Amino acid sequence: MFTRTPLTWQVGHSASLDAAPAVWVPASVPGTVQVDWARAHGWGSVQVGDNWRDYLWMEDVYWTYTAVLPELAPGGERLYFVCGGVDYACEVRLNGRVLLAHEGMFSPFTLDLTGAAAGDVLAVVVFPAPKSRPEPADRVQANQSCKPAVSYGWDFHPRLLPLGIWEDAYLESRPASHLTDAEVRYTLADDLTRAEITVELAMSQPGAGRLHWELCDAAGTVVLAHDGPAESGSYSATLDAPELWWPNGQGAPTLYTARTTLLDGDAVVQRVESKVGFRRVRLVMHPTAWDEPSDFPKTRSTPPITLEINNRRIFAKGANWVSPDIFPGVITAETYRPLLDLAAAAHMNLLRLWGGAIIGKAAFYEGCDARGIMLWQEFPLACNRYEGTPAYLHVLDQESRAIITRLRRHACVTLWCGGNELFNVWSGMTEQDLALRLLNRNCYDLDPGRPYINTSPLMGMGHGHYVFRSAAGREVYRIFADAACTAYTEFGCGGPAVSADYLREIIPPADLFPPRLGTAWETHHAVGAWEPNSHLLYDVIEDYFGPCTTLEEVVAGGHHLQAEGLKCLFEEARRQKPRAAMALNWCFNEPWACAANMSIVSWPAQPKPAYYAVAGALRPVLASAKLQKFRWRTGETFAPELWLLNDAPEAQLAGRVEAWLRLGDSETFLLGWDHPALPPNTNLAGPTLRVTLPDSPADRLTLILRVPDHPEWESEYTLVFTPSAVPEAVEATRRLNQ
Amino acid sequence: MFTRTPLTWQVGHSASLDAAPAVWVPASVPGTVQVDWARAHGWGSVQVGDNWRDYLWMEDVYWTYTAVLPELAPGGERLYFVCGGVDYACEVRLNGRVLLAHEGMFSPFTLDLTGAAAGDVLAVVVFPAPKSRPEPADRVQANQSCKPAVSYGWDFHPRLLPLGIWEDAYLESRPASHLTDAEVRYTLADDLTRAEITVELAMSQPGAGRLHWELCDAAGTVVLAHDGPAESGSYSATLDAPELWWPNGQGAPTLYTARTTLLDGDAVVQRVESKVGFRRVRLVMHPTAWDEPSDFPKTRSTPPITLEINNRRIFAKGANWVSPDIFPGVITAETYRPLLDLAAAAHMNLLRLWGGAIIGKAAFYEGCDARGIMLWQEFPLACNRYEGTPAYLHVLDQESRAIITRLRRHACVTLWCGGNELFNVWSGMTEQDLALRLLNRNCYDLDPGRPYINTSPLMGMGHGHYVFRSAAGREVYRIFADAACTAYTEFGCGGPAVSADYLREIIPPADLFPPRLGTAWETHHAVGAWEPNSHLLYDVIEDYFGPCTTLEEVVAGGHHLQAEGLKCLFEEARRQKPRAAMALNWCFNEPWACAANMSIVSWPAQPKPAYYAVAGALRPVLASAKLQKFRWRTGETFAPELWLLNDAPEAQLAGRVEAWLRLGDSETFLLGWDHPALPPNTNLAGPTLRVTLPDSPADRLTLILRVPDHPEWESEYTLVFTPSAVPEAVEATRRLNQ
Repeated sequence: MFTRTPLTWQVGHSASLDAAPAVWVPASVPGTVQVDWARAHGWGSVQVGDNWRDYLWMEDVYWTYTAVLPELAPGGERLYFVCGGVDYACEVRLNGRVLLAHEGMFSPFTLDLTGAAAGDVLAVVVFPAPKSRPEPADRVQANQSCKPAVSYGWDFHPRLLPLGIWEDAYLESRPASHLTDAEVRYTLADDLTRAEITVELAMSQPGAGRLHWELCDAAGTVVLAHDGPAESGSYSATLDAPELWWPNGQGAPTLYTARTTLLDGDAVVQRVESKVGFRRVRLVMHPTAWDEPSDFPKTRSTPPITLEINNRRIFAKGANWVSPDIFPGVITAETYRPLLDLAAAAHMNLLRLWGGAIIGKAAFYEGCDARGIMLWQEFPLACNRYEGTPAYLHVLDQESRAIITRLRRHACVTLWCGGNELFNVWSGMTEQDLALRLLNRNCYDLDPGRPYINTSPLMGMGHGHYVFRSAAGREVYRIFADAACTAYTEFGCGGPAVSADYLREIIPPADLFPPRLGTAWETHHAVGAWEPNSHLLYDVIEDYFGPCTTLEEVVAGGHHLQAEGLKCLFEEARRQKPRAAMALNWCFNEPWACAANMSIVSWPAQPKPAYYAVAGALRPVLASAKLQKFRWRTGETFAPELWLLNDAPEAQLAGRVEAWLRLGDSETFLLGWDHPALPPNTNLAGPTLRVTLPDSPADRLTLILRVPDHPEWESEYTLVFTPSAVPEAVEATRRLNQ
Repeated sequence: MFTRTPLTWQVGHSASLDAAPAVWVPASVPGTVQVDWARAHGWGSVQVGDNWRDYLWMEDVYWTYTAVLPELAPGGERLYFVCGGVDYACEVRLNGRVLLAHEGMFSPFTLDLTGAAAGDVLAVVVFPAPKSRPEPADRVQANQSCKPAVSYGWDFHPRLLPLGIWEDAYLESRPASHLTDAEVRYTLADDLTRAEITVELAMSQPGAGRLHWELCDAAGTVVLAHDGPAESGSYSATLDAPELWWPNGQGAPTLYTARTTLLDGDAVVQRVESKVGFRRVRLVMHPTAWDEPSDFPKTRSTPPITLEINNRRIFAKGANWVSPDIFPGVITAETYRPLLDLAAAAHMNLLRLWGGAIIGKAAFYEGCDARGIMLWQEFPLACNRYEGTPAYLHVLDQESRAIITRLRRHACVTLWCGGNELFNVWSGMTEQDLALRLLNRNCYDLDPGRPYINTSPLMGMGHGHYVFRSAAGREVYRIFADAACTAYTEFGCGGPAVSADYLREIIPPADLFPPRLGTAWETHHAVGAWEPNSHLLYDVIEDYFGPCTTLEEVVAGGHHLQAEGLKCLFEEARRQKPRAAMALNWCFNEPWACAANMSIVSWPAQPKPAYYAVAGALRPVLASAKLQKFRWRTGETFAPELWLLNDAPEAQLAGRVEAWLRLGDSETFLLGWDHPALPPNTNLAGPTLRVTLPDSPADRLTLILRVPDHPEWESEYTLVFTPSAVPEAVEATRRLNQ
């Protein structure tokens, strides 16, 4: 009785809403018109060189999709056109008659086409990309729509405004009486021993059959069930001792399955399934937050940003997530899978879904539910002042309600956030902006059990820095050491793409060496991306490692800095626990092939060396050293501070950490630290070494922290070493002064 | 056809809901049961000594009001019981049958009693005061209700929980079809030249007559009119070039009158009038706010707290307002009038309606509309953690909707605020608390054009200090000078009541001198009020002025410190404009006779010397000096910094300020400052004097700033002087080293 009929679509463009396209090409649905057009015309990859420029004109025309209705299978009582999302504004027509005008890519729609017949023509006319002003062509054009701002051009994203039917769209025959929604909501008791469940079932109209609802545990055993008439309604149930959903590294991300079946006698008419993870989330203050401020005039205490899951405070380790492709229509479960596997393998437990990007497809949230990856979900506002005009508030209201209603079902969604960096000068928004008051209102009305914050950073939180060494000479080793943030929700170091071979694929040979402005290095964001000297920092690479003569040397030097830089930043943030509660680097992935970027994974899913460094820094337990700087010379006092970092929910036994120094082929034992036991989720500060560095021909200095009982806790830090040019100094410091 | 019938009430108490009172006494409505009971039993004034303790038992019993319905005038089609508010929870019964159960003193109700007849008995049973826990008897008991927390005991308020029908209540006969509401809302054009008006008219049911609506300007001329059928509906109109409503000191607080008349042919059935003030309010950032923060990791910029009225930034000068009486039922327009006259005469343009107190009666808001006094309106939350339980959120939702819907009609209401000091440790609330998210939601839904903030202080704002000199020896002269707040929304200095005679009325003779713990000085908050040594600071008075031997000396010394202290704090806050945007002392008035309090007006409306000092510090334009400290000695360098402060919307001409020093009978000219013109609303920093103080037998040093062309700008600062005990030092500094 349910029959899904795929449609065969073609697409073409025209200059006005009423003009017919002159040329039609086959269209993929879900898809993106830019991809359809390029494929039909045999264009080269958008990832290569400056090919992206060929797409620029496409943002300003009307794109018409058409499909001729095929013969439909008999038996369905009603015929629907089900559309998961159109990017960005559209009209839907049947045989030329307008059925719907719609703005907003995140609200799906379903149109009743009952009566339509084979041969009828269904059309979706996609409007030009929204722009609040005709020029300049920058992100400000996005400030009166819910189209993600990143597409308008960013420091890791070319100007390319995708358009099209980006989510699944199909015809479906259904019985007149069918389920339109089945949602499970719950409240966990304070002591987590009980879940009070509410099941809300929505029917298109009451029917003669019956509804059977059941909840199965992870093993498939039915633990709750309910039968009732086939009509809309809600009912309540209590689940005792639910198995809890835990974030990655804290326990199993247990998911139950809720299954609703519409029955006609014994015949199954319709079945709807969803996953349910039971967990409680709260934002709480760090332990000493209420002690501040202490002086008059007294201001407020810092707002809470420590995540408490199932009554356990959890240090949030992870990264900022951006769209995995510049064309949302091409994203599938297979796009997400390797990226989420990488995030989970790196011990990440939280991804911040940055407000400049799209809201992900269902597979993304399902993947995070299954892996215990918590999500900080932003609405599509970033780095703009989104003025609360009636038209904008109308679309924001519709889109945010659709987003909240869809995503509140996922255990992984942990925190709602208005958008990115809205309370800084480049955005110019405040708590008074109606857009943010609306989002807070909608989250409160539709999902009061989940925390909501207006933006990041808030008071106490920090964004940046984004370089291994600033123009003023400040290295990563000082950036966090001099700060005391409650959460480090963006920070990063630029690094080249995953390999020299990868770069050879995207940069034309003539541009390849050396990296410089005015070449594909620039359009692929290695130079002049944000500031003129970003994101590669070629001068910094050469300053530390000497002049580069090959592409391979550039890549190796850049990878070294990004890896050591992120290791330093993540580990320092962890050392500041529990005052600091989050460390999220900018950024995890990237939507296209950047020549250099702060991402730790090259498009589409190729981990850079920095990825492995981050994975090491995020291990549940590790030996860690706080370092003073990157470049060392003979005669200087090398004084690392030793730590053991424990984010695991288990205590760790007493043991021994050994510090060794490697210079060239020579390894020297420096110190043994016999440390006491570590309580669960608690760090331990150890001794500070003081070593006068000897003379050596080596160009690298490596600090090795060995843990005989736990090789998996061991760490290494490889820094630059410059032998002294002054023989007397060499002589004076020949022996280590331990 | 509209006939109001007052009722004759009696009241009595019982131990349970169903028990009948044993003793009945006459009841005033509006009123308070405590007052009725005390009056009937001939008790002495609650203001005297410890009489308040006699009232304590009254909070825990049921109070039943009854009234026998009299013969009703003929002609009314429907009979209603109209009740403006019951403090706090009640049942309404007719002949013993429960018609309504109601919680919350701020939501009025109207009950249809049609069919009731003379002789029927109307009863209002008032429940015991709400308490979230039985003990201890402190403000925490208020944390699950909307009853103002102050009554549970505060540092300026005895424990006394008023109960009763505190707003007007009466019978009214009405035609079946009558107006139930007529509200004017508007949006001002950005350039203020046009008001887009919406009139919303609500009828009990459609009628055969007609509705005539008109808007009259301040002169009574009809400027807009509309006629329509007698049914609910809304319509729009445009008013060109509206005369604007301006805050005190910035222009006239022009009010229009909206008049709605229900007509039956030519006969007037009903007429409803309200005032409309046209003004636009925004919260904006201070001019350099977006420049901060400048370093990485970068946090947010401070939230906006500068008021912009009609596109003009206005420095908010005023005070924190508390209930003018511990018994809300006795408050009338005559209670408010002298207090508001004092506030206006002191050049105040904003009162913060502190969340610990009640929401005022209609006359208060009408008085502020008429005087141009802006209001920062808090909801009834203060210094508690109001946990978002379903029951609490339910009553907060109802009460806040009633408050918003009533007060949004007033031009004077400028800012909504969740409550007092909620984001500090003694409250322990955060943005995540559902109570505050609910208030944001309701303000957004019902009144989106007015700013909303969660609490005070917010990031950048400051509360305190509350003493002339702290225990650590820090004087008021350093408190703000060392700070850089965006708004000083609470600060104060304790001072004794208005006079020694006043104190003799409230403190029993045996307790009168000296002020000490364990006497009526303590229950009237002069000692042990907040900290043990508050609010009188007797030791500080004696330290500066020498041992006191009479009550008059205590009063004089305390008045001197409070006056000079507040002058210093207000003027320093004004000097920090435009970064600082508000200065509101704690507090303006008080609800009963405090022996000492930070108020500048003794109960009920008797201004202390500090009131006149504040009025001087808030003059639109004045000469001002920034001082270093209060006590001076021969030989020290007295170095006041001269300023001209201009909060007026007009520019001021260039001119001359002369600084003079008075020591005993001797006046010395110190310096003449020929200052340039002052732009509108802009201060001017002048020179810093440097004077070595001479020897003198005087015990006071007075700095006089004379302004020959503007005597109304002149200022004086009278400090304590101690001649040097060392003759050599006297000799060395005999002459002024100007």
